[in-house]
Amino acid sequence: MRLARFDGGRIGVCVGDEIADVTQVCGIDPAQWPPVGPLVLIRDFAILRPRIEAALATAPRKALADVRLETPVPWPNKVIAYPVNYHAHGREMQATYRATNQGFFLKPSSSVSGPNDPVVLPHVPGREVHHEAELGIIIGKTCRSVPRENWREAVFGYACLMDMVVRGREERVFRKAYDTFCPVGPWITTADEVPDPDNLEMNLWVNDELRQHANTRDLVLDIPGMIETASAVMTLQPGDIIATGTPQGVGPITDGDKVRISITRLGEMTVDVVQGTEGASEVFAAAYVPPIIKQD
Amino acid sequence: MRLARFDGGRIGVCVGDEIADVTQVCGIDPAQWPPVGPLVLIRDFAILRPRIEAALATAPRKALADVRLETPVPWPNKVIAYPVNYHAHGREMQATYRATNQGFFLKPSSSVSGPNDPVVLPHVPGREVHHEAELGIIIGKTCRSVPRENWREAVFGYACLMDMVVRGREERVFRKAYDTFCPVGPWITTADEVPDPDNLEMNLWVNDELRQHANTRDLVLDIPGMIETASAVMTLQPGDIIATGTPQGVGPITDGDKVRISITRLGEMTVDVVQGTEGASEVFAAAYVPPIIKQD
Repeated sequence: MRLARFDGGRIGVCVGDEIADVTQVCGIDPAQWPPVGPLVLIRDFAILRPRIEAALATAPRKALADVRLETPVPWPNKVIAYPVNYHAHGREMQATYRATNQGFFLKPSSSVSGPNDPVVLPHVPGREVHHEAELGIIIGKTCRSVPRENWREAVFGYACLMDMVVRGREERVFRKAYDTFCPVGPWITTADEVPDPDNLEMNLWVNDELRQHANTRDLVLDIPGMIETASAVMTLQPGDIIATGTPQGVGPITDGDKVRISITRLGEMTVDVVQGTEGASEVFAAAYVPPIIKQD
Repeated sequence: MRLARFDGGRIGVCVGDEIADVTQVCGIDPAQWPPVGPLVLIRDFAILRPRIEAALATAPRKALADVRLETPVPWPNKVIAYPVNYHAHGREMQATYRATNQGFFLKPSSSVSGPNDPVVLPHVPGREVHHEAELGIIIGKTCRSVPRENWREAVFGYACLMDMVVRGREERVFRKAYDTFCPVGPWITTADEVPDPDNLEMNLWVNDELRQHANTRDLVLDIPGMIETASAVMTLQPGDIIATGTPQGVGPITDGDKVRISITRLGEMTVDVVQGTEGASEVFAAAYVPPIIKQD
């Protein structure tokens, strides 16, 4: 099932070129603040799914082209991200470590945006903002210490994800935390429709130029390992998002670019890039930038 | 006003040695999942405060000693943390950077725990877990790009906070992300009762031995600067927590320890430390640990 959020917090099921509005049967209040309805939907999906499927025949439908898709999980408990999780990307970054010996970092929930939200470049003169194409995993239940052989029990579904970053040597989280720096979409494809998440083709284009092309089979820390590692440390919650790491081919994006990501079975989305006026920081202006970072 | 959460998500106002139950007047459902009621309370506090004050005379009261205090904001949008924000701590860690040239990192919302939740040490043989005493700032409204002169508009209140960490050279966020690694409490003291957040004495004891003693006047990046820096990058939300950095004196905690933190005007709390069985990770067992970390 392809579950989308649209037109101000409504919940829809994508069927072909149409979207069926199942907001009511899901019991979601589109105006709720904070917007945690999708978390409840994910938590209760086993119960709700038969009701959603039963409602599909009569649910109001619109053409997908006539609605505004929004990010499916706007207020996750956390966004977990694995650094340097493809060897070829590690080589291009001259990184001596991998996700397997570093663990994860986090992106803020406030950085999550949708397929129709432009990526707003911060005003950071002299710095490049890079695109990173990633497979996104959506967690399905509250769980801790999931052994790798049980990883499927923790996964609700998958989505396309972009991890935007200001390049530099400051704290990585800081450089990756800007609003709109984590487009997720265009919808969640539930796990039952993705039997082979370890064999998905992923492509990213900037203005129709192919910049990144990879297959999730080349992940260094694989999906079972990512679930195991994250849940060893933290209680995972329904709606948690895992950014699984980017392959080689990262590069700069600038005002006016259109960035398209496509992943097998998960659909595709194209986000606009616009130059913003906010985001200047003394941190980037600091005269002192250490050549290496010892984290304390 | 000292706002507490207690006994399964109830909301109380601490008055002397008592707590007045104002759950109903706040419109909070203690059983709501996810537990985002406190975020709505903080967002709407200007409207709710007169109602809460009017209800105090008749609200049911209990002795503070007879309730179980819980962390006041269990599901924040984000927990922002500033690294190396006291020079003396920077020296003890031999860190060559400061928060002013690194920016912030994040802790997961799932790491937040309360004054009566023990800190559970993960099973990471050969590693030390350290205490870090910090002033916690609770954000009061949705805001972005707050100039430093307007910082007070963004702040709802303050609380004691501990930032626990497994020492090592892996990704800092990973080492700081364990469940119960971010005790916050014992309650939120609203900003109007803290006229001098830049001059608060902070002490931390392990088993009655004073380990950390500092004053917030010695922060490298001050509170206005932390609000400005965080909001330059991210939209802050009601209930967001800022861990402002720890002073010198960090050190190991072990099974059976009692860790007490006290900050002027904000009260004190004592958390137990227990050795857990979860949390082992291949990451810590990896044969390869780079001597330095280049973040990508």
